[in-house]
Amino acid sequence: MPPHHVAVLGASGYLGRELLGLLDDHPHVAVDVAGSPTHAGSPVPEVLPSLASLDHITFTDPDPADLADHDAALLALPEEASAAIAPALLEAGVSPVVDLSGAHRIRDPAIRADAYPDLPDEAPEAAYGLPEAPPATLAGADLVANPGCYPTGALLAALPLLQAGAADTLHVASASGVTGAGATPTETTHFPNVHNSVTAYGVASHRHQPEIAQEAQRLAGHPVAVRFVPHLVPMDRGIHTTVIAPGAAQGLDDEGLQARYAKALDPLPFARLVDHAPDPNHVRGTNNVEVRPAVDGDDAVVTAAHDNLVKGGAGQAVQNLNRLLDLPETAGLPRKGGAP
Amino acid sequence: MPPHHVAVLGASGYLGRELLGLLDDHPHVAVDVAGSPTHAGSPVPEVLPSLASLDHITFTDPDPADLADHDAALLALPEEASAAIAPALLEAGVSPVVDLSGAHRIRDPAIRADAYPDLPDEAPEAAYGLPEAPPATLAGADLVANPGCYPTGALLAALPLLQAGAADTLHVASASGVTGAGATPTETTHFPNVHNSVTAYGVASHRHQPEIAQEAQRLAGHPVAVRFVPHLVPMDRGIHTTVIAPGAAQGLDDEGLQARYAKALDPLPFARLVDHAPDPNHVRGTNNVEVRPAVDGDDAVVTAAHDNLVKGGAGQAVQNLNRLLDLPETAGLPRKGGAP
Amino acid sequence: MPPHHVAVLGASGYLGRELLGLLDDHPHVAVDVAGSPTHAGSPVPEVLPSLASLDHITFTDPDPADLADHDAALLALPEEASAAIAPALLEAGVSPVVDLSGAHRIRDPAIRADAYPDLPDEAPEAAYGLPEAPPATLAGADLVANPGCYPTGALLAALPLLQAGAADTLHVASASGVTGAGATPTETTHFPNVHNSVTAYGVASHRHQPEIAQEAQRLAGHPVAVRFVPHLVPMDRGIHTTVIAPGAAQGLDDEGLQARYAKALDPLPFARLVDHAPDPNHVRGTNNVEVRPAVDGDDAVVTAAHDNLVKGGAGQAVQNLNRLLDLPETAGLPRKGGAP
Amino acid sequence: MPPHHVAVLGASGYLGRELLGLLDDHPHVAVDVAGSPTHAGSPVPEVLPSLASLDHITFTDPDPADLADHDAALLALPEEASAAIAPALLEAGVSPVVDLSGAHRIRDPAIRADAYPDLPDEAPEAAYGLPEAPPATLAGADLVANPGCYPTGALLAALPLLQAGAADTLHVASASGVTGAGATPTETTHFPNVHNSVTAYGVASHRHQPEIAQEAQRLAGHPVAVRFVPHLVPMDRGIHTTVIAPGAAQGLDDEGLQARYAKALDPLPFARLVDHAPDPNHVRGTNNVEVRPAVDGDDAVVTAAHDNLVKGGAGQAVQNLNRLLDLPETAGLPRKGGAP
Repeated sequence: MPPHHVAVLGASGYLGRELLGLLDDHPHVAVDVAGSPTHAGSPVPEVLPSLASLDHITFTDPDPADLADHDAALLALPEEASAAIAPALLEAGVSPVVDLSGAHRIRDPAIRADAYPDLPDEAPEAAYGLPEAPPATLAGADLVANPGCYPTGALLAALPLLQAGAADTLHVASASGVTGAGATPTETTHFPNVHNSVTAYGVASHRHQPEIAQEAQRLAGHPVAVRFVPHLVPMDRGIHTTVIAPGAAQGLDDEGLQARYAKALDPLPFARLVDHAPDPNHVRGTNNVEVRPAVDGDDAVVTAAHDNLVKGGAGQAVQNLNRLLDLPETAGLPRKGGAP
Repeated sequence: MPPHHVAVLGASGYLGRELLGLLDDHPHVAVDVAGSPTHAGSPVPEVLPSLASLDHITFTDPDPADLADHDAALLALPEEASAAIAPALLEAGVSPVVDLSGAHRIRDPAIRADAYPDLPDEAPEAAYGLPEAPPATLAGADLVANPGCYPTGALLAALPLLQAGAADTLHVASASGVTGAGATPTETTHFPNVHNSVTAYGVASHRHQPEIAQEAQRLAGHPVAVRFVPHLVPMDRGIHTTVIAPGAAQGLDDEGLQARYAKALDPLPFARLVDHAPDPNHVRGTNNVEVRPAVDGDDAVVTAAHDNLVKGGAGQAVQNLNRLLDLPETAGLPRKGGAP
Repeated sequence: MPPHHVAVLGASGYLGRELLGLLDDHPHVAVDVAGSPTHAGSPVPEVLPSLASLDHITFTDPDPADLADHDAALLALPEEASAAIAPALLEAGVSPVVDLSGAHRIRDPAIRADAYPDLPDEAPEAAYGLPEAPPATLAGADLVANPGCYPTGALLAALPLLQAGAADTLHVASASGVTGAGATPTETTHFPNVHNSVTAYGVASHRHQPEIAQEAQRLAGHPVAVRFVPHLVPMDRGIHTTVIAPGAAQGLDDEGLQARYAKALDPLPFARLVDHAPDPNHVRGTNNVEVRPAVDGDDAVVTAAHDNLVKGGAGQAVQNLNRLLDLPETAGLPRKGGAP
Repeated sequence: MPPHHVAVLGASGYLGRELLGLLDDHPHVAVDVAGSPTHAGSPVPEVLPSLASLDHITFTDPDPADLADHDAALLALPEEASAAIAPALLEAGVSPVVDLSGAHRIRDPAIRADAYPDLPDEAPEAAYGLPEAPPATLAGADLVANPGCYPTGALLAALPLLQAGAADTLHVASASGVTGAGATPTETTHFPNVHNSVTAYGVASHRHQPEIAQEAQRLAGHPVAVRFVPHLVPMDRGIHTTVIAPGAAQGLDDEGLQARYAKALDPLPFARLVDHAPDPNHVRGTNNVEVRPAVDGDDAVVTAAHDNLVKGGAGQAVQNLNRLLDLPETAGLPRKGGAP
């Protein structure tokens, strides 16, 4: 089987370089274009020493119109850039396009305008790409909105509750490593400011709140009230998610809740129902998510862990790509990690 | 004014050494006894190099009966040891005794037996020592139960809500540095297991849940449902607390909630109402707690940060001691830290 | 080509689990035995959640005599255990045996007795397995002593100097992540003791000093004086090596020294001559070593970085195994990492 | 005794804020001016939340000419700014001026021009302020060059060797926390780049090399060859220094070297000769330096630890100020830390 030819745009950021690393090992895909205007002309390892063996790939500054003969494009760009380039790619006939940014995740125009005020009002239709519980539109979609790093954890942690219609409220407290804030140095990412620090940010205003609420409603079949508090913690990569779902365990003991989770998660190749504490260290570099539910009174308290750059970004994008290209869902996606 | 003579028992653990450091700088207190059976005979700096200037204090293994002539005793012992030694000290006439362990915090015998199954059924009466909102029994108490490290953050974050009777539910997600787990090496505290890790523990079962619920009820005047999820994060010291209080901001906008918090917190010497993200780094080595409330729909979302070993332990014990000995409440307690 | 069947003994420690992870991806090798008396009977992922996809391997407690039909054995055991079991395996006809411990590295009996006083005086002959500059005995050896984690960095950093006979003294300052201290919790590895800490240890007494000296002499053809100071730093994995070689750059400018290094290192698949600062982050999870030489007066100052668990342990063992089994030297060995 | 009135210029950087914190606790000094053009008009705690109790100090943008009535000025400015402002202060009659930057440390004009090419050729005479072994010019100096963070460690570690004339070569490998790189975010200080990283920088070219060499020569009475390799490690503050001094232990065993060190260091209030591993954690927030010598063959191998912002910066500046103002040398300088 000849490889599928894909282009990665925004290939030198944290998600882009993760895509390059994953796709270079992918048995059925070849990266022909690694777009990075900043680094155009440089072989990958000169810019990214950890990708030492990728000396056969050189960054370029491609014109979307020239990508027409590619089998797929993956966008790891800032949302403004994604919003500009995705329509051009679709027009050029590239399909599927998987957008790792937030530009195409929110369907309701008013909510989208509120969460992403800098984006144009018009946007092409996109399918939300949660492969574990995809919308009907995902199969055969031309444009896929890859889930946000936090929503991935929140939705997978709550999935069995939502699918059972058992949750009408989710209180989500998430903790992310600093790569989630991007590769550009800021006060927020300055080492002495992060070391020995935990801070909440975007309280009552983070863009991932409406995304979680939108998809929770889709999965539950009714509106779900979502409170979402993200925290920055001294990790380089990884997200830990804690969800309290009031009333969602009514009538269930721990075993009953476990059984509900087992039924929902066991068929999923990357979701691991565990009876130890989920830990970003366990899933480092993998596309796995560890999930552990517990009962506290009538409430469900669920903890989960995934790698923000893999399952919460590049890995999930490859998982979507696999499904869209009719490849095995797990192709090229690590399920064992290198953490000690 | 001659100094008050105090004994510190359990003086070589994390809380004990913090007490030694604080009290050595205290203008009105002298540490005469630093109890540590393990290190009896060693000057403090030989065991604890960071306390280099405390060469005038030598660890001993004191008999409680010999402490009768002391003005106070501070217990930084495991709870079983505290439960055994506190009655002996009271009987010997030592007063006040401030217990930093959990042995005397829970008043309801059934709840106490459930949370601390290894403790004896009988326990002397103790006043809960939250100096920012003390029970009537704290003034003149012989035995004070110093609040737990997590309850300190949760109660101070929610204090204005509770005092206003506005909260009937608290969802608390806390993140603690590893000194909270004690000075004895375990799998949990092994560096490679903590590095780049966030884990929840004690979900639906942590001893601090009934403590928070007990005191929240006292402050609110009615029962308060508490969910509590503590997390271990890669910090050495510090606690970050996130509280979601459903419905507690009903009828309030951000300004209104801020005003309620200002009224409650401004008179308190160590509570700082801030409009930046509370951060354990900001309060490192201090007795301060940073608190920031926000409105999300009808709910209040409050974040807070304090040093688990100071405000969450040794500092608060000194604050209680100051009040009990009629010293200025802030004496010997740092309000500026050494974080970068 | 049917896979080679190998046994890994000591498979649940840091080096053992890294071997399992690497070999599970190896195209020409199958792990039939994963020895771990402690965890015998448990599937790998139950003990090591990060190896989630290795559920087809179960730990066992094998008898060396039963391993006769294996194509190779890899020992990731404490040195006492390795010293006991290696002769038994050789007698049973297992060959090659690659020993990752220090038990068989030192050839001079007096030096060995001094460095490893707890080992028996008698030891089978072993070839020192530095694949980048192997002794003649390595080809076809029955027993291979895999280099120590620190000597790997020191020897590869100094290799071109030693091969040119230009160095008669090496001053080595190394910094290691905490996995180098093993998986058992101790005071030394307790998170609060490592966090924000750098400490030297084993000054003038570390076992890796005679190992470096022995091999430096072999490579240089004359005795080389070695000073070695290892440091523990707040990383989970990785080693940084700084070598000062007095007089070793005599007559050379930076370009001349670079040229000498390029000639020596460019043919080696895992040695990367770089013109940025070598960084454990760049080589995390890979078998690479980054090397950068500089001239300071007449002296050479060389910095290098490798992953202590891969190139400094399990990866190098696989590299040796590949050579011994006539497989491609790079088979199964990652040359790109997952660091941000 | 009325307090001495001092001005701190560059008061919001890492060294400046540390000065504010130290001086606010100083029994004999009052900070009247806290210069920071960027933050002029803001009370200290608004800019620096960890200095919560310094609400009585407001940042200003002072004119040097207006500082004439101050008893001293402390400069925590970039070297270009220090070089410009120090002469103006001296001309205005402010004395002493303690400069924490590198602008006035190097005496030889050619070496200074090489190390600091952006500074003007002319510079006022300054005394090098190493209080443990001061030059004759330090007493009564108008302008004091506070030692660099790295030279402080290297010189104090080697002091007894230099004073005995026993060392003619120093090989220095130092490791610094990230505050040493300043408060401005850069690629180098971006959290994901520092986390799990150790890198050498400025190899054969760092400005502190000629500074160490200059002062080593002064102390030894003959030229001393210095090789210096600084490393950046994942700490926020602290420096670990490892010095190999070839031949410097000739004729001495460990006890003899210890005795030489005890004689030299025991009279010094902040130098602590220890028999455990020196550790930045032990001296965090203090003006102490821990020193431990060892013999390796004929060579001395000395390790040391100090806080880069205190003994390596602000604390040492206060120590110099104390001596210059005839105050007790230890006034206002912490000798116990807050590390766990």
